[in-house]
Amino acid sequence: MTTRLEDLPLRDDLRGMTPYGAPQAALPVALNVNENTHPVPEEVADDILDAVALALREVNRYPDREFTGLREGFAQYLGHGLEAANIWAANGSNEVLQHMLQAFGGPGRRAFGFAPTYSMYPLLTRATGAEWVAGRRREDFTVDPEDAARQVADAGADVVFLCAPNNPTGTPMGLDAIRAVYDATDGVVIVDEAYQEFAPREEPSALTLLPGRERLVVSRTMSKAFAFAGARVGYLAADPAVVDALRLVRLPYHLSALTQAAATAALQHAPTMLRMVDDIVAQRDRISATLQALGYRPYESWTNFVLFGGVDDPRAVWDGLYERGVLIRDVGIPHHLRVTAGTEEETTAFLDALASVGSGA
Amino acid sequence: MTTRLEDLPLRDDLRGMTPYGAPQAALPVALNVNENTHPVPEEVADDILDAVALALREVNRYPDREFTGLREGFAQYLGHGLEAANIWAANGSNEVLQHMLQAFGGPGRRAFGFAPTYSMYPLLTRATGAEWVAGRRREDFTVDPEDAARQVADAGADVVFLCAPNNPTGTPMGLDAIRAVYDATDGVVIVDEAYQEFAPREEPSALTLLPGRERLVVSRTMSKAFAFAGARVGYLAADPAVVDALRLVRLPYHLSALTQAAATAALQHAPTMLRMVDDIVAQRDRISATLQALGYRPYESWTNFVLFGGVDDPRAVWDGLYERGVLIRDVGIPHHLRVTAGTEEETTAFLDALASVGSGA
Repeated sequence: MTTRLEDLPLRDDLRGMTPYGAPQAALPVALNVNENTHPVPEEVADDILDAVALALREVNRYPDREFTGLREGFAQYLGHGLEAANIWAANGSNEVLQHMLQAFGGPGRRAFGFAPTYSMYPLLTRATGAEWVAGRRREDFTVDPEDAARQVADAGADVVFLCAPNNPTGTPMGLDAIRAVYDATDGVVIVDEAYQEFAPREEPSALTLLPGRERLVVSRTMSKAFAFAGARVGYLAADPAVVDALRLVRLPYHLSALTQAAATAALQHAPTMLRMVDDIVAQRDRISATLQALGYRPYESWTNFVLFGGVDDPRAVWDGLYERGVLIRDVGIPHHLRVTAGTEEETTAFLDALASVGSGA
Repeated sequence: MTTRLEDLPLRDDLRGMTPYGAPQAALPVALNVNENTHPVPEEVADDILDAVALALREVNRYPDREFTGLREGFAQYLGHGLEAANIWAANGSNEVLQHMLQAFGGPGRRAFGFAPTYSMYPLLTRATGAEWVAGRRREDFTVDPEDAARQVADAGADVVFLCAPNNPTGTPMGLDAIRAVYDATDGVVIVDEAYQEFAPREEPSALTLLPGRERLVVSRTMSKAFAFAGARVGYLAADPAVVDALRLVRLPYHLSALTQAAATAALQHAPTMLRMVDDIVAQRDRISATLQALGYRPYESWTNFVLFGGVDDPRAVWDGLYERGVLIRDVGIPHHLRVTAGTEEETTAFLDALASVGSGA
């Protein structure tokens, strides 16, 4: 006799739930989860491997609980006068955000974000026992600073998520909006800059707002610009007091010695990795231009993906692309689809397939 | 002006807390946190490195969310007819236990363990919002099956932790006690076998009890027998329905591709690693015999460490050892200290230092 999940003493609030995660399918052109589709360059991989080999010599010992070397690497990469004391990291930015919610959210508290936004925010919020409140965006998915501040004040949120640029829409958020939101709340404000490296280089990061704002947090990830999704490394910069708070909720030794070694080595190749970013940005802009020409409505994107509207039958288009070996994402916005900018070849494959689907070929 | 932790909107239940973790000190002989002090053998490290090199080729992609290859490796290593569907893993057994508490504990629920036991149980329990109830052991830190069952029934616990053999005491727990506890509760029962590989080979594991007990979970770690504390890999075996429950609470892609590759490769060298275990067991028994000869009272140990009583002034002994370059652990039991069995050389260094401290030399 097989035991079913409902036979177990599972928590009531988990009953009937299904695990989160994008559908996994092995297609030749996978542009569905905003990965960096460029492999890590060989010279970078070689250095990472050397660092891992060194770490393996002492892998019988617990890792540095403070991951000091890695935090120094992040501080140096981010610049803006940041030091190791300003940095926190975990196994993917999801875990970084989970730590933030464990420290500043949790039972009896409330988290807020402007929908549509990264779908993990409400899941992480509820999983740590807090309530999720969704705010509204303009028609074009941008946010008006004054309206944003008003919504945040009305929500009485303890934790505010600002995804900038925003996933799944790709749209930027100005520093004026971030400042206005910060001033409108006594809670912590997390600016999630997972895709910041794909924004125009001259545009300032929310890192410039950190001085004097002890409740402001800027989170980042190595999954995108650093082509390191498989290594699971997210991080944040904030006032050292915020980092002290996160030490209270992290599991001891949460970052493995191999992760610390691999990430530290990869960071030393930042210039190489950022050249790859330029290639991806070029493909993203090519996607936007071609989508426009095909009669779709792409949104301004500062990320490595493009959300586009004007799709009469998203399911049919998604299926048509799937049949042609191209996997993209239906993010649940009616008449919209989202596609990751891949290599030049992958992007061509997507655009050709889309043209052929659109023409009914 | 420096921001202090208390200036931030931290959760009330975290105020005044300090981060968990053993004191970190760089001494020549570190026998304080029950690590395996033997480095991973070179031929094993070479294979691990090859596996990591392969994983790096696709590290730009998210890892296998189901870590199927690794789960197959664990199933094969554990035997007892287990399959991949019975296995779960995470970044250290602390995260495995956290997942269990998120699924079966949490706000409004209660977890139970026989004190003194692994100090992370109450911390993990409270961090996930449940209440912790501590049960009692006999004078010699063993547990009487009938009394154990009665205590568990009285506690009305939703999650029961049985550390077997127990940390920090090293003492075994019989299968009769585990059976009795299981029958006395409707909650989940987690047998934490972190140190099981150091128990006598002929003694059965709680894995033998899994068939027909869908609320029973046996957790393990690669930190000890596999000398892999730095790689952070814990796992458990249970009914597939329990694994389904854990999928609801894990962060997507919680196990990195590098962790999956490294652990899978290490598992293939189980026989080599278990030979190292034999050496450690020999040193443990040497420690127990010598402690007895020195007039201390070591407890029966089925682990890679020895708890010993009869220490008039633990602080003085700990300091004396520290001055002689040997780090051991005061686990907070009056007149007791705990020492990890190291290599033959480290063990000799500890025993010589202890003899010299005891004689006032």
